Amino acid sequence: MFLEAVYHRPQQNWCYAYNGTTIHLRIRTKRNDVTSISAMTGDKYAWDRTMEYLPMTLLTTDEMFDYWECEVTPPYRRLKYGFLLQKDEEKCWMTEYTYLNEAPDNPDRLFEYPFINPVDVFKTPEWVKNAVFYQIFPERFANGDPSINPTGTLPWGETPLRDNFFGGDLQGVIDHIDHLSNLGINALYFTPLFTATTNHKYDTEDYLQIDPQFGDVDLLKKLVALCHERGIRVLMDAVFNHSGRTFAPFVDVQKNGESSRYKDWFHISKFPIHVENGIPSYDTFAFEPLMPKLNTENPEVKAYLLHVAEYWIKEVGIDGWRLDVANEVDHQFWREFRQVVKAANPDAYILGEIWHESSSWLQGDQFDAVMNYPFTHATLDFFVDGSTDAEGFSHAIGKQLARYARQANEVAFNLLDSHDTPRLITLCKEDKRKMKLAVSFLFTFIGTPCIYYGDEIGLTGDQDPACRKCMEWDPEKQDQDLFSFYQELIKIRLKYSAFRTGTFTFLSSESRSTTLAYAREDEQGKFIILMNNHDEQQSIEIPLAENRLEEIRSGETYMIKNGSLNVTLPSYGCLIFRVVR
Amino acid sequence: MFLEAVYHRPQQNWCYAYNGTTIHLRIRTKRNDVTSISAMTGDKYAWDRTMEYLPMTLLTTDEMFDYWECEVTPPYRRLKYGFLLQKDEEKCWMTEYTYLNEAPDNPDRLFEYPFINPVDVFKTPEWVKNAVFYQIFPERFANGDPSINPTGTLPWGETPLRDNFFGGDLQGVIDHIDHLSNLGINALYFTPLFTATTNHKYDTEDYLQIDPQFGDVDLLKKLVALCHERGIRVLMDAVFNHSGRTFAPFVDVQKNGESSRYKDWFHISKFPIHVENGIPSYDTFAFEPLMPKLNTENPEVKAYLLHVAEYWIKEVGIDGWRLDVANEVDHQFWREFRQVVKAANPDAYILGEIWHESSSWLQGDQFDAVMNYPFTHATLDFFVDGSTDAEGFSHAIGKQLARYARQANEVAFNLLDSHDTPRLITLCKEDKRKMKLAVSFLFTFIGTPCIYYGDEIGLTGDQDPACRKCMEWDPEKQDQDLFSFYQELIKIRLKYSAFRTGTFTFLSSESRSTTLAYAREDEQGKFIILMNNHDEQQSIEIPLAENRLEEIRSGETYMIKNGSLNVTLPSYGCLIFRVVR
Repeated sequence: MFLEAVYHRPQQNWCYAYNGTTIHLRIRTKRNDVTSISAMTGDKYAWDRTMEYLPMTLLTTDEMFDYWECEVTPPYRRLKYGFLLQKDEEKCWMTEYTYLNEAPDNPDRLFEYPFINPVDVFKTPEWVKNAVFYQIFPERFANGDPSINPTGTLPWGETPLRDNFFGGDLQGVIDHIDHLSNLGINALYFTPLFTATTNHKYDTEDYLQIDPQFGDVDLLKKLVALCHERGIRVLMDAVFNHSGRTFAPFVDVQKNGESSRYKDWFHISKFPIHVENGIPSYDTFAFEPLMPKLNTENPEVKAYLLHVAEYWIKEVGIDGWRLDVANEVDHQFWREFRQVVKAANPDAYILGEIWHESSSWLQGDQFDAVMNYPFTHATLDFFVDGSTDAEGFSHAIGKQLARYARQANEVAFNLLDSHDTPRLITLCKEDKRKMKLAVSFLFTFIGTPCIYYGDEIGLTGDQDPACRKCMEWDPEKQDQDLFSFYQELIKIRLKYSAFRTGTFTFLSSESRSTTLAYAREDEQGKFIILMNNHDEQQSIEIPLAENRLEEIRSGETYMIKNGSLNVTLPSYGCLIFRVVR
Repeated sequence: MFLEAVYHRPQQNWCYAYNGTTIHLRIRTKRNDVTSISAMTGDKYAWDRTMEYLPMTLLTTDEMFDYWECEVTPPYRRLKYGFLLQKDEEKCWMTEYTYLNEAPDNPDRLFEYPFINPVDVFKTPEWVKNAVFYQIFPERFANGDPSINPTGTLPWGETPLRDNFFGGDLQGVIDHIDHLSNLGINALYFTPLFTATTNHKYDTEDYLQIDPQFGDVDLLKKLVALCHERGIRVLMDAVFNHSGRTFAPFVDVQKNGESSRYKDWFHISKFPIHVENGIPSYDTFAFEPLMPKLNTENPEVKAYLLHVAEYWIKEVGIDGWRLDVANEVDHQFWREFRQVVKAANPDAYILGEIWHESSSWLQGDQFDAVMNYPFTHATLDFFVDGSTDAEGFSHAIGKQLARYARQANEVAFNLLDSHDTPRLITLCKEDKRKMKLAVSFLFTFIGTPCIYYGDEIGLTGDQDPACRKCMEWDPEKQDQDLFSFYQELIKIRLKYSAFRTGTFTFLSSESRSTTLAYAREDEQGKFIILMNNHDEQQSIEIPLAENRLEEIRSGETYMIKNGSLNVTLPSYGCLIFRVVR
């Protein structure tokens, strides 16, 4: 066995409590090396009568590793454990200290999960597992009240630039709530709504006011109430890493320099504040002088921002926060943020904007989820760019699933585009077949899917500012076929729990292949999904123990002959089979 | 290259802030595989002008892996990075996503340490780096006030049993403070002092009272003040995982059952509480009915225990807490504990009793250190049992150093015995030469050494209760040679900072060998330590670039000839050389 490839550590994704009674253990080995693994488990104070071996199953695989998993229910909430690795006849025990050729005769040097304390269990909101999100960039969704248009508002639908305005507002969302209900989504994520100078509003001026170009707090309350009536949850965007240049404390610092009572609200290296060779004399988001970084360690700043977090939950009833540039704010702040937010609404969803590996934020004390851009990359690489084959795609997805605890994967915020990326249809060079295939994967994968406003009716647009176009409301100009396609996928996802929280297994993902097969399964049902990611028709054959399948969109029945399913898929075709038992 | 053996993750020991400006990066590779590694580092918002390659050096090695390290000082506190691995001519770039044969042309898919926020930096107390601890088990150290002897107190020096008493007390410590000053230690760790029924006092009755058999709060104040006058810090033992059976809230539960207002202070599965087949109907330490586990998630319990933690710091001025069974208490409690303790005394040392891998507690938000039993095991395996050779020893030590951040290693609580283990001299079968060699390693290694009371004068004793013998105060019966030996080692450690916080490097640790050579070095000096862990004399030869060495205990000068130091060591001999520049 290639023991150098083995990795386990008694924490993070490798060993965690899934709930108050269950611990998940995971271990990685070199791909196709070890033939079986068991976890040697027991209570350290009653080892002799509690020790047992639990078989581990293959959770997922990537280009280099197999990842194994098992569930343990320790009788007294305490767990001492090691691993028995086998390759054919060869046996080896892994302890916290070393590898042994014989079973350890006591648990002293094994790994340990000392005690399942409920407060440490990473709990994510149940509703998010069943959510389908829709992201709204409010300035560009719908203009429902021209009387509050900002100065210089342009006619709806002209070319979006970095600094122009079209007057989208909250009334516009209220006016088009039927569009959203009709689509079938059940959660909205709004990019910032607070007063700010730009069209994207990521330069907050006042965290306690709705921008007057969008409406006011009462209108937001009306909108949230309307959403809740329709079973739609609402997430707002908290830009706590930095403020805008017009934020009163920063205005004071600009005016009064070192004598400002707000000087410690920011990270300032030189007064009077200035910008030299493009580098501000104060920390900012990137090097953007408009966005001074907030000193979230300052107790005043912390108290202010935590008040903001609580206020909008209590006053308006929002269902959670998306956290902008969440990775650059201190962990200590986010720990207190979680305490405050969950106290105000135990069901609130805390979603961080982090593009890279996020384990440090997903241990239960900070976020529920992050925006899953690694999922975006993997999906676009395969379905859009074709820069990976089916095998490469399965590895990227497999690696991602192995990286976090199951409760994190279940509420991961999966997206294919956003206000920060080109639109999916544009990346697909407007080939709707490719787009549909990528979207089909999104809706049949573990984690919470999000639709970027307008994607469902074929809105195009490259990188910002083009991806922030005005929504198209002329039914003639909306792609109704695409809309129906989204509608149907949402219905399927919400009808069958297996697509949301069932197990996920690749059945076929070969090297140099563009066909894909995978299964989703839970106690309610089992589904087989086949995809042809190619512009010519292709056959796919997978071994299946079942007898009968039903394709859930066509209703057609397929019989399995000789233990194998053999189907020819049209170009960019996708079939979703339900196993008929 | 064996890329399956490579491991890095952008957190924990692999990537952490060492202080407000410096990040340490580490990566592991298969042993003797990769020939060089550089970290590719830069600011993601100014990649082109900040990107640079930093060479990594070999930090340590174990039986399977090499561990590499480098320090980075990112210009804007933000770090994006990857690794360039080289084996002779072969090159390979490691990113967060994959391995590449060419340098990535942008930082998008690299690893990230998003921002050094000071509050997240793991800071450990400076004084602990320079501390030499002495552990006192108060019932057995010295009886200074027979008037407060507990009922049935036996004459000093009789055989210790699990349940007998000898009347050791705080006055006894005061009386013998010269012994401690004379020895040279500068920190005391007391096992519990609070009122309890047993001789070890781990079954607390009242967390706010000194046990009357030891004295009272005023006497403790006097003792602490006396210690502080002499530059000796004082650590107390917090038994917060469980209380004793006589703890008032538990007495109330025993009396009033389900109607007790304290029933949620514990974890009770069935009323009235009882024990069936050795299993209590309430959670306990192990299955010990005398020690009911406290419900540290209950806000009342939490408030009470945090008050206790703060009270003894503020009232008596103690310098920190050792935390009993720290691993079974919830992380959330320890996070709040750290906030309260560090607010009361920013210099307080928080030391957890954890015997296994402790990364989850050593990230900066919970403990400063844990009792380093893996160090104990490694040292005893080599110096006492002889169950490993020099190479195996260097691997066990190397693995341990790679596991935690440098600031954790610098204040690790290194011990060779305690009230929970047999005494070192007894494990050595009273061969003082072996004992001295192990102790020499303890005092010349990274981390804070601790002497268990009596070890310094040759007190013997096997596993508890024998290891809790009465201290020997008759000078005739004390081993004065051993005492002088400890005195001298303490002086050496405290004189040269290299022994405390310098780098540690094995120079010779061969397979099947019982000789050892290692170096400690900082800006103040460089030291070479040679050890012969065998009962016959042995020669050791190591290549050395330096010219002249001085053995610091004998004062003898050694000249290096032809770039190599060649010394014959007596049985169980140890030489400590200072490089003369």
